[in-house]
Order: sequence, then C-alpha cells, then structure tokens
Amino acid sequence: MITTDICIIGAGPVGLFAVFEAGLLKMRCHLVDALPQVGGQLSEIYPYKPIYDIPGAPEIKAQELVDNLKKQIAPFSPTFSLGERVESIERQEDKSFIVTTSDDTKIHCKVITIAGGLGCFEPRKPAIEQLEAFEGKGVTYMVKDPELFRDKDIVLAGGGDSALDWTIFLSNVAKSVTLVHRSDTFRGAPDSAEKVFHLAETGKINLVLKSNIVKINGNGKLNEVLIEASDKTVTARPTDYLIPLFGLSPKLGPIADWGLQIDKSQISVNTVDYSTNIEGIYAIGDINTYPGKLKLILCGFHESALMAHSAFKHVYPNQRLSFKYTTVNGVNAF
Amino acid sequence: MITTDICIIGAGPVGLFAVFEAGLLKMRCHLVDALPQVGGQLSEIYPYKPIYDIPGAPEIKAQELVDNLKKQIAPFSPTFSLGERVESIERQEDKSFIVTTSDDTKIHCKVITIAGGLGCFEPRKPAIEQLEAFEGKGVTYMVKDPELFRDKDIVLAGGGDSALDWTIFLSNVAKSVTLVHRSDTFRGAPDSAEKVFHLAETGKINLVLKSNIVKINGNGKLNEVLIEASDKTVTARPTDYLIPLFGLSPKLGPIADWGLQIDKSQISVNTVDYSTNIEGIYAIGDINTYPGKLKLILCGFHESALMAHSAFKHVYPNQRLSFKYTTVNGVNAF
Repeated sequence: MITTDICIIGAGPVGLFAVFEAGLLKMRCHLVDALPQVGGQLSEIYPYKPIYDIPGAPEIKAQELVDNLKKQIAPFSPTFSLGERVESIERQEDKSFIVTTSDDTKIHCKVITIAGGLGCFEPRKPAIEQLEAFEGKGVTYMVKDPELFRDKDIVLAGGGDSALDWTIFLSNVAKSVTLVHRSDTFRGAPDSAEKVFHLAETGKINLVLKSNIVKINGNGKLNEVLIEASDKTVTARPTDYLIPLFGLSPKLGPIADWGLQIDKSQISVNTVDYSTNIEGIYAIGDINTYPGKLKLILCGFHESALMAHSAFKHVYPNQRLSFKYTTVNGVNAF
Repeated sequence: MITTDICIIGAGPVGLFAVFEAGLLKMRCHLVDALPQVGGQLSEIYPYKPIYDIPGAPEIKAQELVDNLKKQIAPFSPTFSLGERVESIERQEDKSFIVTTSDDTKIHCKVITIAGGLGCFEPRKPAIEQLEAFEGKGVTYMVKDPELFRDKDIVLAGGGDSALDWTIFLSNVAKSVTLVHRSDTFRGAPDSAEKVFHLAETGKINLVLKSNIVKINGNGKLNEVLIEASDKTVTARPTDYLIPLFGLSPKLGPIADWGLQIDKSQISVNTVDYSTNIEGIYAIGDINTYPGKLKLILCGFHESALMAHSAFKHVYPNQRLSFKYTTVNGVNAF
C-alpha cells in the first residue's frame, strides 16, 4: 500500500504542476498515469511541436515544457505509478480513499485530484480492412520519434493539421512520403495546406486526393496499401509504414462510474476550488468543465493552485493555511 | 486620440500577457501604466529576485519574466502610454469608452481591462523627521539597481522580508550596511533572519535592534541618521543612503470612483469571464477578487485568457469566435 496526501490521476502538465502547488503547502503527491511516461499528450502525441501560449515562454517544445515541470517539482519528490490505469476508488470510514490501479497497486490518500486530460484517449481508426492486424507491424497512429521513418517509404492518411504537419516534417526525413486524403481540400491551417500542395508540385511528396485507403497487406509486416480513387479504381502502393491521423477519441474510462457529475464526457466542477460533487475529489485541466472553461494548459495551472489551497483542509483539517510567496520564501521541500 | 480594441490599465505581467490572449483573437491593445516602464511590481520592486512558481520556469528572475512576456507579445504590436495614470473613463453612446490619462492622452476603446495589480501603490513611510525632504537625495524606498550602493555606507530600516533580503544582498555590495529594527525579532522568513544574525556576529553588518530612526540630516544630500534606542539615547550614524522598507500601501486611485463594485479595495468580478458589474469592463490579476481568489501571477494569466474570449463579443459583436490552439496554428499577428 502506497500512502500519500493527494493521489493525482494523470501525469500531464497540469497533474505535474499540481505537485508543485501541493508541495508548497507541505502536501505529498503520488501520480498515476496509463501512459508509460509523464507528460500526457505533450510527450505522447506532440513532443517535438512548439507551444506558443505558455505565459513567459514565447516558444517552447512540448517535451521541453514537460522537462521543466519535472525539474520544478523535483524538490517535492513525487512518486509515480506509470503504465497503470486507475480502476476503482473506495471511500474509507475516516473519509480517506483507497485507489486501485489495473496492476492492483493500492494508494491510500486523503484527496483525489483527477487531472486526466482527454481521459484515456484513443486514436480514431479509419475503416481500413486489416488495419488492426498490422498495428505495431507498420501501422502507427502517432509520430513519437520521427527517426523511425528515416529513409523509409511511408503513407499518411488524413486531412487535418496533424496529417499536414507530419507530411511536411517527414518529407525531409523519409525516403518517400505519400499523403492520402478523401477530399481535395484540407481542414487544417491554410498555410500548411499550401506548403503541402507546393511539396507535391515540386515532386517532394505524392499527394493522392479524393481517395481512400481501403485495405492493407503484408507478410508479418505491412508492405502495401490499396488506395481507391473516386472512380472506384484501386491502386496498390508499396510502403513500410502507414500513419492514419484522424484525431483522438476521448474516453473517460472507469472514472465515468464513480458517481461524479459528468457533462458531455467532462467532470463538472465549481470555480471556487475546482472540486467535484464528491467531497475530497477535485478535477483540473482538460477533463473538467465549468462556465467559461477554456482547454488551455495555462488554465489548468491556475486550477491546480486553487485546488491545492482547498485540498489543504482535507489533509490538515486542524491547521490554518499560511500562504507564502515563493519570491519571498523560496521553495522549501519536505 | 488613440483608437484600440482593448485599453489595458496596468502593464504588469498580467496586463502584458492579456495582449497575447487578445492578439490571438485579433484584438489590438493599448496599455496605460503610472510607472515609467512595463513590468509592474516585478520591474519596479524586485527585478533581481527569483520567482519559483511560474509554471514551467523552475527559477526565473522577475525582470527576465517581464522580458520574456515582452517578447511573447511583440508580434501583436501593443502600444503604450507609460508614466501616465488613468484619470477618467467616459461611456459613449455606442457603448465604447474614452479613457483619459493624467497627461490628457485620450484612448478610444471597445473594452477596458483593469490589470492594475495593487493599484497605484505607494511605499509606507515611517515617521522620521525630515524623511520626505531627502527623497531622491539619499532616501529611497526601493532597491531598483543594487549597483547604486556599491562601496557606499547605507542604512536600512524594517523587519520584514524585504529588509532582511536586501541587508543580506547588499552586505556584499556596499562599504557598510546597518540594519535598524524596532524589535529584536523579525517578521521575515526565519532562515533569512538567521543569516542576518550571522552576518552581524561575523562583523559583516551592523545590526541595531530595539531602535528607531527618528531624524535624518544632511546638506543638500543625506549624510546622517539619528537612531533612538529603547533607553531613549540617540546616536548619530553617518550614511550615504537610507532605505526604509516598510512595505507598500495599495491605493485604488481614481478607479474607486467609476461605479465598480469594490470589496476591500479590490474589484469584484465573476469567474466566468472576470467581468465587473459594468458591461465592457473587466478586472484581472491582483486587483480583482472572487471566491477562492489567490494573488498569484499564474492565476492572472488564466484570468486574462477567459477575459479575452469574453471581450471578443464586444469587439466583434457579429462574429463567431473561432478558437485555435497555437500548437496547431502558431501565432499569427495582424
């Protein structure tokens, strides 16, 4: 049994920063995340992409922000259960909780803070015959390390920003890049679309419009995609990798069954302290909703600060909170 | 007449970041600040102090944060009236405002966002005979540039964190440092107090406890302070500078007369969009109050984002707001 003050579900940027705000008030945190590393979407989906709207950081790569947050919370020695999904929570007589994960790890805590982002998000999968059979064998739904594709033949599918951005980026990495899109216009940013059209005109990529991938083949490993054009003709194209990029489909997962007030797959909270309808359970970051809510990392940071000041009364019910500015006192670890 | 979308009163960190959030939604900003430079308290009071609780910045000097924010908002070309205090606002028939400053600058805007921090704050002045006569002639209430005191004899007065921190810092800069405090214990952080006692024991500073400065003298420029001990004996000490550090006294200034709902010198706002009771006027950062409010810069950043999304309806009443993530679209200036 792990014992802590706050069990934070979700180790994305907001869950990580919550450790800092809790730590300033002398509360310890244990974080659980279904992903095998901290950083949430930033590390899992777009580690190499720059973010421009972190206040005070005009341009920072997603992974760099995560690394900075790890450094910022290090003095408070958070502990982690990574690659584990929270399965159940159990209220104790003294109002504390026992949280149980998919690996049967048990965490005894006074407060639960859900910082689950989009929830247990899953890539949206297009209807391509044999698609799931080749997952991990040439089919991948995310570009985690672009080097995997160096000097390979790759096919991307999709028409949004991810499809455009990775087509542009990988055109300098892969041996050949083919982008297949069902329409002849793109949903993504106009200037990205322009770049992709330019790359196609100059022969740097193959752009296959008004077409769909209908089937994939291989022998243990993917080796071709079958592309159907609008006139129903089907062409086979040899490839090492297929990267379908059709966005993510958020799933709340087991959290949906805990009796929390849910509004369109998000957890309703009040804006005084971002507490849920269950005493001792808070929700911060993209997973919560309230009037005026914006799904911005910087809003989650604010929510984590107010959450921590409210959580204090559950962790130290008999103590008065003494609020000190770090500029005055520095960061005092335990 | 200056014409803009949002007139931001206060160019501290929160006012500056509001330019970014407004800019993402294609709204232009003009900032007014009574101080001669941007950055608010950070640049005026503690430019050299490190801040530890800016999310993603484990340690950053106050002025460095201000410089980063200036860089972040540069693409949106904000304009400024610095060294001017806002004196009055006048509602127009079309619901826009005309803001008039102490220099009679007039700004025509659709939205007013008050990001005034502590308001027009003023240093608290101790009761020392002749004190104001020597302001700017040896008496200063802030350490803006420590180099001013290099190889000089200086006297500090006070018992809080500022007095302790500057005593420690200046002990390595000045020729001699004397700290005068009316008590023999300090209100500031215990480890800072310990350091000061240690500096006194090792002869690096002069510590004069249970004493008050009662009068200062000079000839055009300060040259001595008269210190009264608890037994009423008075000692003269030669000095080049006197730095009384008794905190700041916030003043709302003319804002108090605009019909805004005020709660203990702060402006009441709702947490949906940080709007005040007057349509088209918002208040963000340390100057506002609402249930759960924490006076943290990171909270002001969040407030500025929600404010901007709400202000959009006043600036573009007939347009639907299209919200795009910078990670997807980058930062597009005007």
